[in-house]
Amino acid sequence: MTPYEALESHFKKIADLKHISSIMSWDESAMMPSGGGPARQRAMGTLSAQIHDLATTGDIAMWLEGCAGLNLTPWQQANVGAIQRDYNRAQCLSSAFVREQTEAVMASEQQWRTCRAKNDWPSMLPALKKVVELTRTESKLRADNTGLSPYDAMLDLYEPGMRSARLDKLFAPIKARLPSLIDQIIKHQETRPLLPLGDDFEIDAQRSLGLNVMRVMGFDFDHGRLDTSHHPFCGGVPEDVRLTTRYDRKDFLTSLFAVIHETGHAMYEQGRPKQWLSQPVSEALSMGTHESQSLLMEMQACRSRDFINFSAPMMAKAFGRPTHDPAWSAENLHHHVTQVKRGLIRVDADEATYPLHVILRYELEKGLLENEFEVEDLPTAWNEKMNQYLGLSTTGDYNNGVLQDVHWPAGLIGYFPTYTLGAMMAAQLFSSAKKTIPELSAQLQCGDFSALVSWLRKHVHRLGRSVGADELLKQATGEVLTPDAFLAHLQQRYLP
Amino acid sequence: MTPYEALESHFKKIADLKHISSIMSWDESAMMPSGGGPARQRAMGTLSAQIHDLATTGDIAMWLEGCAGLNLTPWQQANVGAIQRDYNRAQCLSSAFVREQTEAVMASEQQWRTCRAKNDWPSMLPALKKVVELTRTESKLRADNTGLSPYDAMLDLYEPGMRSARLDKLFAPIKARLPSLIDQIIKHQETRPLLPLGDDFEIDAQRSLGLNVMRVMGFDFDHGRLDTSHHPFCGGVPEDVRLTTRYDRKDFLTSLFAVIHETGHAMYEQGRPKQWLSQPVSEALSMGTHESQSLLMEMQACRSRDFINFSAPMMAKAFGRPTHDPAWSAENLHHHVTQVKRGLIRVDADEATYPLHVILRYELEKGLLENEFEVEDLPTAWNEKMNQYLGLSTTGDYNNGVLQDVHWPAGLIGYFPTYTLGAMMAAQLFSSAKKTIPELSAQLQCGDFSALVSWLRKHVHRLGRSVGADELLKQATGEVLTPDAFLAHLQQRYLP
Repeated sequence: MTPYEALESHFKKIADLKHISSIMSWDESAMMPSGGGPARQRAMGTLSAQIHDLATTGDIAMWLEGCAGLNLTPWQQANVGAIQRDYNRAQCLSSAFVREQTEAVMASEQQWRTCRAKNDWPSMLPALKKVVELTRTESKLRADNTGLSPYDAMLDLYEPGMRSARLDKLFAPIKARLPSLIDQIIKHQETRPLLPLGDDFEIDAQRSLGLNVMRVMGFDFDHGRLDTSHHPFCGGVPEDVRLTTRYDRKDFLTSLFAVIHETGHAMYEQGRPKQWLSQPVSEALSMGTHESQSLLMEMQACRSRDFINFSAPMMAKAFGRPTHDPAWSAENLHHHVTQVKRGLIRVDADEATYPLHVILRYELEKGLLENEFEVEDLPTAWNEKMNQYLGLSTTGDYNNGVLQDVHWPAGLIGYFPTYTLGAMMAAQLFSSAKKTIPELSAQLQCGDFSALVSWLRKHVHRLGRSVGADELLKQATGEVLTPDAFLAHLQQRYLP
Repeated sequence: MTPYEALESHFKKIADLKHISSIMSWDESAMMPSGGGPARQRAMGTLSAQIHDLATTGDIAMWLEGCAGLNLTPWQQANVGAIQRDYNRAQCLSSAFVREQTEAVMASEQQWRTCRAKNDWPSMLPALKKVVELTRTESKLRADNTGLSPYDAMLDLYEPGMRSARLDKLFAPIKARLPSLIDQIIKHQETRPLLPLGDDFEIDAQRSLGLNVMRVMGFDFDHGRLDTSHHPFCGGVPEDVRLTTRYDRKDFLTSLFAVIHETGHAMYEQGRPKQWLSQPVSEALSMGTHESQSLLMEMQACRSRDFINFSAPMMAKAFGRPTHDPAWSAENLHHHVTQVKRGLIRVDADEATYPLHVILRYELEKGLLENEFEVEDLPTAWNEKMNQYLGLSTTGDYNNGVLQDVHWPAGLIGYFPTYTLGAMMAAQLFSSAKKTIPELSAQLQCGDFSALVSWLRKHVHRLGRSVGADELLKQATGEVLTPDAFLAHLQQRYLP
């Protein structure tokens, strides 16, 4: 066995255990009864420590060295590169630390579910403080290991190569432009009619509609399924993708577009390079790239008037409404799915206000890691920024403020920026796809996603981690990432 | 850390990974889309090899030796005993063999699902032959390790301490008595009226009824759930028990009694000694003991006229039938749930014919391991015995013959006898419980399971593996296992 073959065989094992970890995480969110939590935390702590032991075994360094003299194909080289990066990252944490963190995070996530239901910030504090302390420790270990700042060392986990200095430059035009743009859009939309759709939509009918739209988009049901969870997500493995959504009898559009969003993630996973699936090089390039795939489907393709022309009769039919009812016309439904308003909840936000939610969180979490704030200060700091960016108050309203997201209780600091990076990438990619596929607009009007998906397969999904994010975007769109396409998209859709 | 503490800490890790393996197996049967199969096989192969490596590490022998000089509590001693037995068993197999077997078994189970749906024995043959070959190898390795015969070495895995010579003695009176007893019962039942119940029962209503009966029996829904799978089973872990059933719109009783049966298994799991859950001593004593708990609930308690008196109105209400309808009277429903008939399918069999299905399989699987038959000979041999024991033919009908059970495709040889051992234990335990709890009959008429469950907790569930099966039965009933209580029960219920 060559050192390269030894690496492949070792990382196949790691991929197998990560497969299991991924399905188990889905189970925890979508299936597990709450009493199963404590035992599950211990079990997942042990599994994560096992994975970490495999990922940091000294043999890897030896095999990596041994690869230097080998004649490898470009994909094998890229795989070695990905393994090298993962190994460098993993090495600086001990198994004991990983286990402690896994168990603390799971306990804190479970605590968060209870506290959010009760608007109970004081009871969340101890668990959150513990997780933030562990993340601070992690960020320092990673900073020492990489020479980056603690925040950048965490950001680099989710968006390899991205730094906060570059983020600040990318976000600056958005932060500057959005407040006035949102004003203009809201004023503009006040003049258009918006007929109500009713407020009682059977869950079974919502689920069928979601499944039908997934089918239209090309989701492969032999390798995945749709379930329900507290927050929608896309988990599992490429061979068995687990999507979730949630249902509200009063509002079917939120659930439907959550399904579409998660299907965008799922198409990325199902499109990863088949012959490399057990190897690190096959993985998604970054969280921003992942989000670009969900937002491209949700925001760019499916909230377009083209797709609403196609889907309006599907929606009406799903709930037994006459298609000639003006409330169920493509025009009125399109108004519904492009309505802009300032709100407190990130996951319910439209694409114009969403980046301000992200920038708020980015600034706060950076402050947390740089010891500018303590966890206790978050509600006040949150309220100040919410007032400043969206003119809304969250005083005493933790549920609609700092308790709304699972990310920090889950130890995910450095993750939020990838949502807006994804929105920017999505706009840039879709603008390029439209140029390459002139009939794309007509295809979406017929519910034909095949050309779009093929384009994404070629330019994004099948590349895995074989290129960097800048290289991917340059090859696909001719440019590295800028906020221009995103701002142009907002202007064009909302202020035509 | 003392050697004993080192053992506890090591087996906690193993329990964690087994927890994960157990939930993943449930997922495979109840949730996984079929395209996820091949990747899942590899993943579970890796996990099982990891568990096997932990279970056979040389440190265990050293720690076990170190325990000899320690002052241990009786439960700690019993835990050491259980660890010693598991270690002896695990040692004789290599990790590579365990991985190969795990993957072959999963492939063969997945093949079985397809072949059964198509009555396709020839396509099942190669996968089944491979699994039987691996089980033959396993049985020889275990025979060398224990000094037992190959079949006894396998039987001992599922029913520790049981030997085929003793089985033959226990089964002989049943095999001799049942054919004529079944004749008498069928003749006796011909004279009683049996009003049809209808043949369209909504799945949602069936599911609600099942959940209600689980609640009545005392199932803890904070630590478990009910789902659907091809074959009903009870999986998961004590903290998170995963039950399944299947539904047939034409017949609600089969599904309902499957739920009751699996709830019996679940009560055993949920009743295992809480403070020992991460240790081998907390595990179920044997598969026969497990089956005794499901059959005690299903056959002894819930098919009794007492419980049907309580549940008849629940059943009628579940399907919107008037309780005064004579078809939905306790008497008529009791006739339905105690109807005896000769049939081809084991899982649909009543308690009188069931043991003959088991004896048929026991004789065939013993022949397979002793090289008296080859896999190709099974359909013919099956048909001969089916004719002999139940007067029925399965020529060309593989689905209702050798393809009906997943056990052999799953590599479970030596398991079938535990079903009938369980039926015998259930009768013996229930007869003893009735003596200790004179009001049990009245309690079941009110749907009150608390005294029965307490009795089972004390005499079975909370003992884990701290005693042997003979000791357990002797303490609970005053006698070791005999077929007497089972035969007496049949006589009393069916030929009163």
